[in-house]
Amino acid sequence: MKRKACTEVGMKSISVDLPGDASEETILDHVMELNADPEVHGILVQLPLPKHVNEERILNAISIEKDVDGFHPLNIGKLCMKGREPLFVPCTPKGCIELLLRMEIPIKGKRAVVVGRSNIVGLPVAMLLNKYDATVSIVHSSTTDCKSLVKEADIVIAAAGQAEMVKGDWIKPGAAVIDVGTNYVKDPTKKSGQRLVGDVDFTEAKKVAGWITPVPGGVGPMTIAMLLKNTLEGAKRAFSQPEDSNA
Amino acid sequence: MKRKACTEVGMKSISVDLPGDASEETILDHVMELNADPEVHGILVQLPLPKHVNEERILNAISIEKDVDGFHPLNIGKLCMKGREPLFVPCTPKGCIELLLRMEIPIKGKRAVVVGRSNIVGLPVAMLLNKYDATVSIVHSSTTDCKSLVKEADIVIAAAGQAEMVKGDWIKPGAAVIDVGTNYVKDPTKKSGQRLVGDVDFTEAKKVAGWITPVPGGVGPMTIAMLLKNTLEGAKRAFSQPEDSNA
Repeated sequence: MKRKACTEVGMKSISVDLPGDASEETILDHVMELNADPEVHGILVQLPLPKHVNEERILNAISIEKDVDGFHPLNIGKLCMKGREPLFVPCTPKGCIELLLRMEIPIKGKRAVVVGRSNIVGLPVAMLLNKYDATVSIVHSSTTDCKSLVKEADIVIAAAGQAEMVKGDWIKPGAAVIDVGTNYVKDPTKKSGQRLVGDVDFTEAKKVAGWITPVPGGVGPMTIAMLLKNTLEGAKRAFSQPEDSNA
Repeated sequence: MKRKACTEVGMKSISVDLPGDASEETILDHVMELNADPEVHGILVQLPLPKHVNEERILNAISIEKDVDGFHPLNIGKLCMKGREPLFVPCTPKGCIELLLRMEIPIKGKRAVVVGRSNIVGLPVAMLLNKYDATVSIVHSSTTDCKSLVKEADIVIAAAGQAEMVKGDWIKPGAAVIDVGTNYVKDPTKKSGQRLVGDVDFTEAKKVAGWITPVPGGVGPMTIAMLLKNTLEGAKRAFSQPEDSNA
C-alpha cells in the first residue's frame, strides 16, 4: 500500500526486505546506509520487529532528519512539550488530527478520550490533542471505568487493538469517533475466513456518533497520506538547509 | 535552598551567577564548560531565563548525562514512551510520585487529574502517572469543566500556578491531593505584605481529602531531595560507565 502510494505521487521508494532471522547488526547496517544516502529523505522500519531484535536500538539509529515515522524519543519529546516542534509528527496521530481539522470538528476546550497508549498511536495522539487544547484523558487496560469516561468525550480516538471494544452505548451523542483499530476476527461467510474490524462497534456507534471513521477505509489511507507528507517535508528541509544542520 | 541541601548531604555545589543581561553565547559557554568538566555530574539552569535568551537552545546544550532536571526533550520523550527509561526523571514530578509511593497510595487503575500542563511539572507528572497505570486526565486553561473532572479523581496534582484555584468542594472525599503551586498573594498581616499559597485551597480541601500536601513544606522539599537523588544517580553512572557511553 505504502509503496503503491509512493508511485502514485511520484516518490521513489526503495524496499529493503530482510529475512526474519536477520541479525540486529545487519538491520543496523542497512539503516546506516540509508542514513548516509543523500537521495533518501525518509526511512521507515516496518514494526513489529522480530523478538531477537532490539527495537529501541534500531529506531534510535534512524537519522532524526529522516525519521518520517516520528518515533524517535527526541521527536516524541518535542511533540509532547509546550513550545517545541518535532521534525516529524507520527503518521497515524497526524492523520487523526487532519481528519478532525478537515471536518472542522472543534478540538479546543473539548473533552477527548484516547483509548490505548501505544508509542505509535495512543500516546502521541493524546499529546497532539493536548497541544490543540483539548482536555485529554488516556484510558487503557488498567482503567476500571472506560465506558463512563468515553461517554463524556466529544472526541474519541480508539487505538487499543481490541476488536469492537468500544460499544455504541459508550458514545456521547454527536461525538466524533476515530477508529484506529485494525483487528481480524473470524468470519466463516468470507472466503478468507476472517474480516477486518476496528476497535469500535461501527454498526451501533454510527447511530449515535456525529462523525465516525470506518475500518477499513478511514484512518488507514490517511496514515499513508501523512507518511508521504512527512517524507516530502523531510526532502524540502534537506534541500533548503545547510548540510550539518542541528536537530 | 538547593545549595544548602547539597552541603548537608556532602555534595559539592558550584554556582555560576550571571548578570541578567548575559548573552546567550555567554550562558552557552558556561554550560559547555560544565559539560566538559568530569568533576561535574549535574547541571541545573535556573528557569525562567531572561526574555532575550532562547531557553530551548540553552537546555538542549546541557549534556544528556548531566541533565539532572530531566528537561531535555530526549529525556521527556523517553519518560513518555512505553518501554523506555529516561536518564533522569524531572525532580518535581518524581517527588510527587515518591510522595504517593511512600504514603502507599494506590496509583494503578486509579483516576488521576493533573491541573496544568507545563513542561516542567504538569506534562511529565501526567506521563509518569500514566506509566504507573493511573487513568490520567490533563486539565488546563482551555478546559471548560475542571471541577467535575477533578471531583472524579482519586489523585489530584495541582500544578497550574493559580493561587487556590482548586476549591474544597472540587475534591472527592478521601482523594490524595498534591499541591505543586507556589503563588504569592497579598497579605497585609504579614511583615513582607505577602503570603505563599498553593494552587489548592488548603483549609477547605484538607477537610475532604484523604491526603494533602501543604504549601510551603510539601512538594518543595521533596523536589530538592529528588534533585540530589538525580545528581547522585548521574555521578554513579559516570563512575560505572565507559567514557563515551550512549544516551
